[in-house]
Amino acid sequence: MSIKVNFNHLVEIYGKILKTTGMSSENAYLAAKVLATTDMWGDPFHGGMSLGKFVKIAREGGMNPLAEIEIVKEGDSWAIIDGKDGLGHVTSCKAMDFAIQKAKKNRGISIVGVKNSMHFGDAGYYALMAAKEDMIGLAMSNVNPVMTVPGGAGRILGNNPLAYAAPAGKEKPIFFDVAMSKVAGGKLHYAKAKGENIPEGWAIDSLGNPLTDPSLFHKNGGALLPMAEHKGYGFALLVEILAGVITGAAMTKDISVWEEECSTPSNEGHSFLAINIESLMPLEKFKIRMDSLIKYIKASPKAQGVDRIYLPGEMELEREEKAKKEGVILVDAVLESLEKTTKELKMESDFKALVKN
Amino acid sequence: MSIKVNFNHLVEIYGKILKTTGMSSENAYLAAKVLATTDMWGDPFHGGMSLGKFVKIAREGGMNPLAEIEIVKEGDSWAIIDGKDGLGHVTSCKAMDFAIQKAKKNRGISIVGVKNSMHFGDAGYYALMAAKEDMIGLAMSNVNPVMTVPGGAGRILGNNPLAYAAPAGKEKPIFFDVAMSKVAGGKLHYAKAKGENIPEGWAIDSLGNPLTDPSLFHKNGGALLPMAEHKGYGFALLVEILAGVITGAAMTKDISVWEEECSTPSNEGHSFLAINIESLMPLEKFKIRMDSLIKYIKASPKAQGVDRIYLPGEMELEREEKAKKEGVILVDAVLESLEKTTKELKMESDFKALVKN
Repeated sequence: MSIKVNFNHLVEIYGKILKTTGMSSENAYLAAKVLATTDMWGDPFHGGMSLGKFVKIAREGGMNPLAEIEIVKEGDSWAIIDGKDGLGHVTSCKAMDFAIQKAKKNRGISIVGVKNSMHFGDAGYYALMAAKEDMIGLAMSNVNPVMTVPGGAGRILGNNPLAYAAPAGKEKPIFFDVAMSKVAGGKLHYAKAKGENIPEGWAIDSLGNPLTDPSLFHKNGGALLPMAEHKGYGFALLVEILAGVITGAAMTKDISVWEEECSTPSNEGHSFLAINIESLMPLEKFKIRMDSLIKYIKASPKAQGVDRIYLPGEMELEREEKAKKEGVILVDAVLESLEKTTKELKMESDFKALVKN
Repeated sequence: MSIKVNFNHLVEIYGKILKTTGMSSENAYLAAKVLATTDMWGDPFHGGMSLGKFVKIAREGGMNPLAEIEIVKEGDSWAIIDGKDGLGHVTSCKAMDFAIQKAKKNRGISIVGVKNSMHFGDAGYYALMAAKEDMIGLAMSNVNPVMTVPGGAGRILGNNPLAYAAPAGKEKPIFFDVAMSKVAGGKLHYAKAKGENIPEGWAIDSLGNPLTDPSLFHKNGGALLPMAEHKGYGFALLVEILAGVITGAAMTKDISVWEEECSTPSNEGHSFLAINIESLMPLEKFKIRMDSLIKYIKASPKAQGVDRIYLPGEMELEREEKAKKEGVILVDAVLESLEKTTKELKMESDFKALVKN
């Protein structure tokens, strides 16, 4: 079962749910938009599926719904922001916006580091914020250890997501969002929710044996494998340094597990970079060059049986276009989670109104 | 056969060889140090093995030995540099140095883009220049297409190397350098030089069939496979955007193949970023946090049969220490190339003096 719902209606109900934690209307709807957009892109784990968990975390003290970010330290091209244990999506929207403002003002590049934040969902959302302002954006976060490293056994390092986005002219922006494990943790959650096994090569248990039943991942001290072995390890460390070490956030094992330890702020760190394109190259020229790069790739020889080569982010942005016209597809896992959460919050009528449309 | 030679002696002979092209002494020894350092790290393809080719390229017009970089455009946090078709190693040392100076002066972050450059060897060298100045450094380059993309057949995109480095306190700096293909092109050259086959999964031919004989790579229109499928594709595009699109350099198929088209400047683009750590966090604190991260990883549980977990760059820096004490190991391929080049340049006595010590 999956149903289609109106995007604005979805943002509305997500925002209303978040407001029950005590969050300001502004902050609640900022996060609601991130979550509903992620649903449109076809990534339910980073969308509505986790909403009920955020309410629980706020209730149990792991997230401060009243938090407003504080700029701890800043220069022309950088800032360190204290997220004050607020919802990661809100802090991240504001931090990326600050990076964009810095790069506008200094007419160059900026980096904004964040400490005392938490799970921020889909990194690509923040990178795309910069692309919409005609900048190249990068967004990244350290996360609690879920991944092993070459030579290691068990969970050592986070699979630290990194995203970037760059605008094009007539073509869609290029927008890329990955975790440094062979697969994202969300894929295990999704497989678990669907009762499916995962292929060998995605994860190992605490002794280093292949793990294929995602429901045993936590029980058996499972760890994801890095993408491309030492390469995923190295990229995860880059993110750990830029989002964790230099921001003053918690690092590796000191980051509490947001999904499990709902009463402890996780103190994840993030880093957001913005590059003001038009300083380095006339904007129109940059866009023409991006279009030419994109067209070249799409026109390249294809493997047998392949009709089309996709650019990173293209599928997600096509799903977004379709969802805005035809409605956002909510999969089982999101619907069930949403039904449960709205029931707990005595918002059954809101849920019914959403799924009826 | 492999022999050990003195590092300074090696730099001396590399510099002398490069000077025969007409390069200034300063530029020749700048590049010589990059190449000899790369030999120390155990990466002969990016070290002395290619030196003879650079002489040939200079002679045939693909590289301008008299080039001095020009700063085309600059702001407080960025610059665009024209490499004027000079040797990539020289241009890259100067561009990274410029990025470091910018980040010192603006007390933040900087990006320096380069156009009209060429093959720059080991990206890690430039990233490490920043780490030695207590900065986080990133270095990247687009290169001619050697890699396919998901859904594609044949060579579409470069395997665009990216490196970063960050200083630690008592521990060695973390320093990471990868190409976005499953393996670097150098590994195919190396296997070819040794007459060995490569495993399936590294490369395909123009029709998409597995390719295991590296000597057939060029003949059969071979293409490397991206690391971690779509993830390597996405990272290669990030580098293409930052090093190619925004710098005004050639992109993808318009980059000429430096190893083959010796009479045509390749017009690769690079990008160098420097982050002035002490603005964002007191330097000592940053170094203590880096040491703590490194010690934590090294002390993590190990897989069966593993004695030690390495940090990225640790092996290379240990080889460097050893080589400075005991001599730089020159493998067959470097020795043969060096013997041939010195013979052509009537520098036989220099070669003999080097290998005798």
